[in-house]
Amino acid sequence: MNSVILLKNRPSGKPSLKDFEFTEEESPQPKDGEILLKTKYVSVDPYLRGRMRDEESYIAPFEVGNPLESGIIAEVVESKNRNFEKGEFVNGMLQWKEYQTSNGNGLNKVDRKKAPLKAYLGILGLTGITAYLGLKKIGKPENGETLLVSGAAGAVGSIAGQIGKIIGCRVVGIAGSEEKIDRIRDKFGFDAAINYKTTQNMKMAIAEACPNGVDVYFDNVGGEILDAALANMNKYGRVVNCGAISLYNKSETPTGPRVETTLIKNSILMQGFTVRDFVKDFGPAQKQLADWMEEDKLTYLETTVEGFENIPKAFIDLFEGKNKGKMIVVV
Amino acid sequence: MNSVILLKNRPSGKPSLKDFEFTEEESPQPKDGEILLKTKYVSVDPYLRGRMRDEESYIAPFEVGNPLESGIIAEVVESKNRNFEKGEFVNGMLQWKEYQTSNGNGLNKVDRKKAPLKAYLGILGLTGITAYLGLKKIGKPENGETLLVSGAAGAVGSIAGQIGKIIGCRVVGIAGSEEKIDRIRDKFGFDAAINYKTTQNMKMAIAEACPNGVDVYFDNVGGEILDAALANMNKYGRVVNCGAISLYNKSETPTGPRVETTLIKNSILMQGFTVRDFVKDFGPAQKQLADWMEEDKLTYLETTVEGFENIPKAFIDLFEGKNKGKMIVVV
Repeated sequence: MNSVILLKNRPSGKPSLKDFEFTEEESPQPKDGEILLKTKYVSVDPYLRGRMRDEESYIAPFEVGNPLESGIIAEVVESKNRNFEKGEFVNGMLQWKEYQTSNGNGLNKVDRKKAPLKAYLGILGLTGITAYLGLKKIGKPENGETLLVSGAAGAVGSIAGQIGKIIGCRVVGIAGSEEKIDRIRDKFGFDAAINYKTTQNMKMAIAEACPNGVDVYFDNVGGEILDAALANMNKYGRVVNCGAISLYNKSETPTGPRVETTLIKNSILMQGFTVRDFVKDFGPAQKQLADWMEEDKLTYLETTVEGFENIPKAFIDLFEGKNKGKMIVVV
Repeated sequence: MNSVILLKNRPSGKPSLKDFEFTEEESPQPKDGEILLKTKYVSVDPYLRGRMRDEESYIAPFEVGNPLESGIIAEVVESKNRNFEKGEFVNGMLQWKEYQTSNGNGLNKVDRKKAPLKAYLGILGLTGITAYLGLKKIGKPENGETLLVSGAAGAVGSIAGQIGKIIGCRVVGIAGSEEKIDRIRDKFGFDAAINYKTTQNMKMAIAEACPNGVDVYFDNVGGEILDAALANMNKYGRVVNCGAISLYNKSETPTGPRVETTLIKNSILMQGFTVRDFVKDFGPAQKQLADWMEEDKLTYLETTVEGFENIPKAFIDLFEGKNKGKMIVVV
């Protein structure tokens, strides 16, 4: 039998284990042209919370009673498709199942000799590519400018900040614990870091940490931290709206200070960024990230959780900030 | 003696005549290198409200007790500057005085043979150029897309909509009276128009008027109409934040639904637009507008008010929507 994780209910507020259902199905058998995949590494990411709502977005919502899915590295354990060989590894948007079949569409082979398999879910995968392309396509930080990053100890934020340093920016990070603040400065090399949980006035704290104002704000959190960042943006500032984790678990539409007069006053750009809009740029982005890795200019952290049955818990823990860097479940 | 209009108080909420002071000063005398200017046409514009606040913005705030200023067409009545001749007309940011001296810096000569002098404050001036460059630099509407314009019967909005029609867009306008709605459709050729004052649910009304969604929103008003527009934006939609007249008279920071999740969901761009950021593009913009005028593709309305002493009242009337198109005071 084959283990499967279904969406049991659409979460109201913060997701809980009650929203997930473990079930079993008959072991899948590949047909001609298909491959049988064994799940090895599962990426859990904040954006999946959005897919649990019954709302149109950039990807279709999950359906109640159906398996969930996310970025997964799987091993080809049987192949009836001439393009794949047994023993190869693939990366793709796959279902939360121990085994599944695929016709190969949308899967990319990954080379475990070039980088650890898990890296293809993190720094060389959508996580790293999100940081890179969010900056390249929208933020456009330049040497000498100030880059502010929220969720800075997280998977995407820690890479975005390091890229800012490579470019020659003053880089300031925002995170939610002293340990994360230390990590941002010591491990990831940010110039300064702010603990939003112990800071009374974020607007003032950002002003102090960014004496020349903020030119680019890479936002992973939204909400009041975004408000405080906007209040510090320079003329021609750019906000990469990459995520809004502070709002994902809200049931009602959250309100806040209106942004339009601020945008007009300083000719500020805010733009929603979804990495899937830039699929054609993934190759060069991955190559640049791999080069920087090789040159020791980029480092990353992972939090790994063992066991297929712990996928939902690992996902839920993201909203408690329990992960250090990329959260990956090892099956 | 020379009449002058000063800022008496910074308005709280909607500006009133009490916020302005009429005074007289000695008649100015041009020194060597200077010219004496007689004010002929005065542009009054919503953005001046922003300069009445004690806040940094893209131009310095007005000072209490000092003369106000705006775009003015003036006649050279005496010249001690070899670059100007008596009888020429100039356009520039000038003070609300009947007569004033200038060294000529920042003034552009205007040719009354090419177009009526007043047109240089409107369709061929910052008004028309704002509409043109706001679309060209940020909105980037394309043939077949839907362009939504607020303040659509106003000076900038009516031109923005007509440019959308020239490009081949479906163009929908929003304004605040039946008369304006008729004008938007009949005089300016918009495809549809919405009276926000008699519409209960703007989000639904926009959805009905824009069956293919909104690709570009040219926003002159901000506030709840912006919220309703954002809810109808297509994937990759662009919002030109050109003005926010609905908020200019608010004393407290207005709040509204947070925009970040909407921006992320549909990869939407919002950008503050200030025409002064694009001074180097003014020449080609003016030329394009003049060409379209000549080809009868653009039309405009003006509301003229007579008398120097009526400048403050004309300005205040903008916030009541009393103008049809560009508001100009004829001195």
